[in-house]
Amino acid sequence: MKQTEQAKKITKVAASLFAKKGYNGVGVAEIGAASGFGRGTLYHHIESKEDLLHEIASQYISDLVQSGHKIARQYPDPIQRLNALSRHLMVVISRSLAEIIVCFREVQSLTGSRHHNVMCMHAEYQEIWSRTIEEGVEQNVFRAVDKIAVKGLLGMYFYSCLWLKPDGFQSPEDIGDVFSDLVIRSLSRRPGE
Amino acid sequence: MKQTEQAKKITKVAASLFAKKGYNGVGVAEIGAASGFGRGTLYHHIESKEDLLHEIASQYISDLVQSGHKIARQYPDPIQRLNALSRHLMVVISRSLAEIIVCFREVQSLTGSRHHNVMCMHAEYQEIWSRTIEEGVEQNVFRAVDKIAVKGLLGMYFYSCLWLKPDGFQSPEDIGDVFSDLVIRSLSRRPGE
Repeated sequence: MKQTEQAKKITKVAASLFAKKGYNGVGVAEIGAASGFGRGTLYHHIESKEDLLHEIASQYISDLVQSGHKIARQYPDPIQRLNALSRHLMVVISRSLAEIIVCFREVQSLTGSRHHNVMCMHAEYQEIWSRTIEEGVEQNVFRAVDKIAVKGLLGMYFYSCLWLKPDGFQSPEDIGDVFSDLVIRSLSRRPGE
Repeated sequence: MKQTEQAKKITKVAASLFAKKGYNGVGVAEIGAASGFGRGTLYHHIESKEDLLHEIASQYISDLVQSGHKIARQYPDPIQRLNALSRHLMVVISRSLAEIIVCFREVQSLTGSRHHNVMCMHAEYQEIWSRTIEEGVEQNVFRAVDKIAVKGLLGMYFYSCLWLKPDGFQSPEDIGDVFSDLVIRSLSRRPGE
């Protein structure tokens, strides 16, 4: 197993354990045992338990930010872009359920620059959506909405980590389509507006 | 202080402690000390820590269900009803932030009928919204949407427990209006549809 694969496995196992038992209820030794790596390998990849928590809270939001910027360049049209962002967000949520649950519960356990860094990435991701809505307003396809609207709309997606079944009959992309249809309708200007 | 006020204070203090330190990180003695009641008063009101968790997870959703049914009777018009449900939901979330955070994090710690009871109330509350949308569809004001839409729309509201500031410059009613405007637009039929 390559080093990056080892690191990913450790993070995945830790996320799953933290989601089940809480961050304070799991020790580094238990993470080592569950991931099948010895102490040496474990400490080669992580500095501390907080380091692991930071990894868990960072990976999915860092992926969302990077892919979000790529999607923004790829889809100049705000409606098409919202649909692409929507599908991608549901795919990431669906494969990161434990990580997102742990982040929501435990982000306050991160200290100093680690906490700041995670919060900044969330703000940057929200900004990608806000900017898309603003461009739609500039192009007269969307109406202007209160700033708090984007928080509500993103909440539609992130809250799904509490009810989403990764093996459910609807794919994340299908759910992304249902949600983006609601979002786009909620923002769209009507004839005469 | 009346017995019901004592009970309410104990639940409020426990919710706040559980939200800060986690359900497993707080003992009954600490709740007693923080609420200023002796062991006798405490055990007069609660049977166990799980009993307290059940109280915390039940109160706001029981309020939402009862008031939801009342609002449904009061507003036969689906659009007006969604606006009233929306405002009321934001008011309840705003005054129950600690309770909702604790419920989301710890509902799995409830066992047997207690867990079932809380989940049933959440389903009943969702059903009040679903029924409102269905009536709108029957009356041709709303379009038919996928069943998962109502989960997304309610997520808009509940997810706000992570970012809502009870002393923020927008009142819960104002936020409820912004959200209900998005929800109603997302569901409304357009001319010719």
